[in-house]
Amino acid sequence: MTDATTIRVGLLGCGNVGAALLQLIAENGDAVAARTGLRLEVVRVAVHTLGKARPYEVAPGALTDDAEAVVRDPSIDVVVEVMGGREPARALILAALDAKKPVVTANKELLANAGPELFEAAARSGVDLLFEAAVAGGIPLIRPLRESLAGDRLRRIMGIVNGTTNFILTRMTEKGQSFQEALAEAQALGYAERDPTADVEGLDAAAKAAIIATVAFGVQVAAGDVYAEGISAITPEDISMAQRLGYAIKLLAIVEAIDGEIAVRVHPAMVPLAHPLAAVRESFNAVFVEGEAVGDLMFYGRGAGGRPTASAVLGDLIDAAANLRQGRVAGLPRPVAARIRPIDELRSAFYVTLDVFDRPGVLEQVAGVTARHGVSIWKMEQLGLGEEARLVFVTHTAEERAMRATLDDLRDLEVVDRVGTPLRVVGAD
Amino acid sequence: MTDATTIRVGLLGCGNVGAALLQLIAENGDAVAARTGLRLEVVRVAVHTLGKARPYEVAPGALTDDAEAVVRDPSIDVVVEVMGGREPARALILAALDAKKPVVTANKELLANAGPELFEAAARSGVDLLFEAAVAGGIPLIRPLRESLAGDRLRRIMGIVNGTTNFILTRMTEKGQSFQEALAEAQALGYAERDPTADVEGLDAAAKAAIIATVAFGVQVAAGDVYAEGISAITPEDISMAQRLGYAIKLLAIVEAIDGEIAVRVHPAMVPLAHPLAAVRESFNAVFVEGEAVGDLMFYGRGAGGRPTASAVLGDLIDAAANLRQGRVAGLPRPVAARIRPIDELRSAFYVTLDVFDRPGVLEQVAGVTARHGVSIWKMEQLGLGEEARLVFVTHTAEERAMRATLDDLRDLEVVDRVGTPLRVVGAD
Repeated sequence: MTDATTIRVGLLGCGNVGAALLQLIAENGDAVAARTGLRLEVVRVAVHTLGKARPYEVAPGALTDDAEAVVRDPSIDVVVEVMGGREPARALILAALDAKKPVVTANKELLANAGPELFEAAARSGVDLLFEAAVAGGIPLIRPLRESLAGDRLRRIMGIVNGTTNFILTRMTEKGQSFQEALAEAQALGYAERDPTADVEGLDAAAKAAIIATVAFGVQVAAGDVYAEGISAITPEDISMAQRLGYAIKLLAIVEAIDGEIAVRVHPAMVPLAHPLAAVRESFNAVFVEGEAVGDLMFYGRGAGGRPTASAVLGDLIDAAANLRQGRVAGLPRPVAARIRPIDELRSAFYVTLDVFDRPGVLEQVAGVTARHGVSIWKMEQLGLGEEARLVFVTHTAEERAMRATLDDLRDLEVVDRVGTPLRVVGAD
Repeated sequence: MTDATTIRVGLLGCGNVGAALLQLIAENGDAVAARTGLRLEVVRVAVHTLGKARPYEVAPGALTDDAEAVVRDPSIDVVVEVMGGREPARALILAALDAKKPVVTANKELLANAGPELFEAAARSGVDLLFEAAVAGGIPLIRPLRESLAGDRLRRIMGIVNGTTNFILTRMTEKGQSFQEALAEAQALGYAERDPTADVEGLDAAAKAAIIATVAFGVQVAAGDVYAEGISAITPEDISMAQRLGYAIKLLAIVEAIDGEIAVRVHPAMVPLAHPLAAVRESFNAVFVEGEAVGDLMFYGRGAGGRPTASAVLGDLIDAAANLRQGRVAGLPRPVAARIRPIDELRSAFYVTLDVFDRPGVLEQVAGVTARHGVSIWKMEQLGLGEEARLVFVTHTAEERAMRATLDDLRDLEVVDRVGTPLRVVGAD
């Protein structure tokens, strides 16, 4: 293809994703050139430390530890940022955008915290800022949300967007492991980091939820705005009881529009077994989208990993290059401020377990507390006999605030020994 | 939005999808204008018969029975074709493209038979021809395949792309209904047509498979090139035996690249229960994509219905309008000729049932036949006792040609009373 347009790419960061991207371009560059007329050439690669052994090949002299020089290099057409983290990624992307270079990034942390600033810089310069890889890795999600569904009105998006926690929950479900055992296995397999906090406490998913809210509903949501509850308190008993009741337990990121406000949260949830999200196993991700016209959609695939993520980066890079050649810009999100409804005002059905002392009148006392707070019990089961018994119930939809007060009062009952972690039920009404 | 660009749309056909599109534009047109700066105005609507009562509103004087006048109207910017069928849709789309009007179509039959001619006309005029709605209705599939995965190398695509047959198979699986009973229910619910041949014999799926092959692998495949086998011979016994062996039976459209050739076929298949396609119930569609870098992906949703399909059409329409404003064209498929590998040369594992007379040496005779054709039995079970017994076996991967010869010879054995419909097993090796 001698008539292909050469696009000179500057790469910032070259860890897993960067190395996989270089390999993908080496493998598929000819096919891409034949199909699109675009020849991608990675001419500069900025890394943290020079002189290390590297599992990939770059053009002679391309490696540098001066990332600023890469974004300022006037011969570079497009910048790809896969270094991660807030700084210096933010400053480098802003410099690239100010220099009118389109940017492709996989940086969810940065987008979830400084998204509006970056989108504005891109709009000011009239260049692309694409970020398909920042949410759900290799799964095409951002482009379908922004383009394919542009004419629809979305109601709610529920996603399994953290592979580590889905792997842990799958092991707990299928092998009866405890949280700690499953976490240890995830760490041994490299799915979980040594400090697993960001994954297991839902913080990683919260950052992705913020980006989904921005793209799907056009509102400004930052990671810190997202209520996040993790899975470390989930027990194998919770999981087996959920299965008996017809549910799987999944860590969900949920974003929905309610009366002009936006609700966005991350927490474990009981998902009906017949729901497509319940069948998402191992470290896979899936995002379930409810649109007014399109109905229910789901996007499923690998949410992490070098090659899946690099595939998404490369799709964006080809798009940015094609736009550059045609003097076009993809529509950017222009998120506006909206009230983020606090978790206290949201409504869910709840699954609650109580360890109680088996005395006459226990159920009456429990029912008295729930009734006092306007919480209505949908179904109930009493397990075990003798001294210690367990009450398990699922409520009708109730406000979080009322549920919290109910649980506080239940803890104060003398007949109640212990209140388990309550779980929200999805699709119960 | 006084500064929105008005895009004048001509609509060809106004059945379910067309009416839903008009309604969607009425509902969401303001939001689309606010977000994209594009005001969509449907100014002409060509219908077959004037003067009928219609469940939608159009601008006064917009209705016409002269479709040619619509595509020739110089004031119309974009043409949407949702009339279906080969002619006059083909001639109208060609006329619109020749007049340099972008076209959005949902017409799978036409694309699967005259795709290359249409793509060439669009390329000649330098305008868009978009068709997201032609495969899998509301599910974003064509755009992700063409754009998000543009840098990856796809291996295989397997889709449940016909809702009617998936509904029938779901009923047979979950309620033990016969094919005829489930078909009657599908007809009563409006999921199946009075003449269900195109759905149940796999012809509808074959047309979609041809389009998927064109988009995903860039090769010219027409509906008639696709080997198609339907579900009318599937029995409830097949389904319960499949479940015992750990499989669900699904009608799959399968497209794969093999050594530079393309294989494309539609047939019922046994899918492992843990595979995401096995959990796709009722009339939902899902397309499973295997890419070298991205790994496994699945796209799930409503494959038919007025509003889901209209949602996909509207996404394309907004894209075409945005491109028109920016003087840009989406990359068109430029399918090239490739050898389509005949079904005889493909390899699968097979599930086979034999009704046999229970005499000594039956198994020996059966094993002799399979061995003679180089077909190796992976697992086998003998059911029933006494006069009539049933042998059920699953083979290792074998060539279709060898399997066919094996079945012919098995039918000729005196100890064999009947050979059931063989089923291909997906993901067995």
